[in-house]
Amino acid sequence: MSAPAHDTVTNLTATTASVPQVIRRDGVVREAVRSVPEEVPIAFSYGGSSHAVMMGTPADLEDFATGFSLTEGIITSLAEIETIDVLQEGDGIDVQVTLAEDKEDALRARRRHMAGPVGCGLCGIESIEQAMRPVPNVSAVDLVLSAHDVVAASSALNHAQPLHAQTRAVHGAGFFVPGEGLIAVREDVGRHNALDKLSGAVLRAGRQGGVGAVVVTSRISVEMVQKAAILGAPILIAISAPTALAIRTAEAAGLTLVALARGEDFEIFTHAGRIRL
Amino acid sequence: MSAPAHDTVTNLTATTASVPQVIRRDGVVREAVRSVPEEVPIAFSYGGSSHAVMMGTPADLEDFATGFSLTEGIITSLAEIETIDVLQEGDGIDVQVTLAEDKEDALRARRRHMAGPVGCGLCGIESIEQAMRPVPNVSAVDLVLSAHDVVAASSALNHAQPLHAQTRAVHGAGFFVPGEGLIAVREDVGRHNALDKLSGAVLRAGRQGGVGAVVVTSRISVEMVQKAAILGAPILIAISAPTALAIRTAEAAGLTLVALARGEDFEIFTHAGRIRL
Repeated sequence: MSAPAHDTVTNLTATTASVPQVIRRDGVVREAVRSVPEEVPIAFSYGGSSHAVMMGTPADLEDFATGFSLTEGIITSLAEIETIDVLQEGDGIDVQVTLAEDKEDALRARRRHMAGPVGCGLCGIESIEQAMRPVPNVSAVDLVLSAHDVVAASSALNHAQPLHAQTRAVHGAGFFVPGEGLIAVREDVGRHNALDKLSGAVLRAGRQGGVGAVVVTSRISVEMVQKAAILGAPILIAISAPTALAIRTAEAAGLTLVALARGEDFEIFTHAGRIRL
Repeated sequence: MSAPAHDTVTNLTATTASVPQVIRRDGVVREAVRSVPEEVPIAFSYGGSSHAVMMGTPADLEDFATGFSLTEGIITSLAEIETIDVLQEGDGIDVQVTLAEDKEDALRARRRHMAGPVGCGLCGIESIEQAMRPVPNVSAVDLVLSAHDVVAASSALNHAQPLHAQTRAVHGAGFFVPGEGLIAVREDVGRHNALDKLSGAVLRAGRQGGVGAVVVTSRISVEMVQKAAILGAPILIAISAPTALAIRTAEAAGLTLVALARGEDFEIFTHAGRIRL
């Protein structure tokens, strides 16, 4: 059987592609077609200078730029972003953000400070200190969910992911408000991106992070806890498992970490008082 | 029920931690203890200068440093590394690599060139070009696996992950040589790290990447294809699904991409000729 042929042209606005394949199932070999998620380099530029590039799903890019700016500490509120323009650049997408003037000056100063040792590799950062950056404390945020809410939040997320339903290969992040349900869901091939997109969507919907719980399909590394706390959400619910550092960081930040939320079951690792059992 | 208490001291050599939790299962609430994977900032320094930091599992760090150096193009062979020293630094680990003198000069020149725009965020790189870097072509590598080999490789990997067996929360990467089986398996909370550790382990075992297939538990983004091709492995087998860009990159690199390898079933996306069906 010959090798499948593939189109070499990327459609930068598509979120999925149909690809030819040879499958072996129950011992029978046949040709087929499968839907897989697109993955595109997405650069963020501020004031015309390229800042970072993520490999991600080319959808909800205004949300992504807003959430990325928030979680990276470039902005603290939506009002500090003046414009967001999404441009195609070669094989990727350049999301150009214009900040309020004082924020742009602050970022330039920060970038001068950062020059020198540079991150390298798709997961590179510069220093151990940057990896372990302090996380906002959400101890004072008053939000209680019932066990039923936790089950409803994870169940609702499982049913609100059109891209995952099509490909079975992307992550989802949702924002659950008691009495309202999931008010936003965002998807991406990268779990960090999905959460950044969600944070941006919450801000752009004019909602405060403190009114709800972040719900994600993925495992919880320390960065997921950092992002939820920066959004101001006091509860993080995950379908999958957490790392030890994520648990310690949630404990120190006063954040309620619920994981392995599957069906009617879940496990609470920190600040269990926010879940009425 | 009170919130669980957590130790704030990280043991930098442990790969798991036992953490208290409150679990709800089948409607019954009780306290319990769960084993979760550690996650530690791991910095790589070359010639005394910090180069990048990864969040990862603190095990097999010599393999990790070797594989990272290979996949980042800092070295092309094991002989170019003179020493690897693993040091504790604050809350993290600094892996100090000494390169052969000409390689150290080349890296210094490359770092000068890179200074200016800097990556930011745990997944930041500098440019779309860097994200889409060219991948070595493995078309000429002559390796054929039977369908039985593919099934044996993924099955063997599932049974050779002690950290995952304990935590159900880490990724694994293995190197399968026909007639020998899995000659190395490495685990990490990060799938990129697991593959870098494996590449280092293959090199340090004195084996050529061209003699076997890389087998991973994770989804296949473009970076996983890049890393397999840089190792020289002509076949990449994944338990999970690939992205469209990963498929295009494998197609262009002459690499056979097999995914969704579960039980006796699997799906071939590129260069199916290397799998005897």
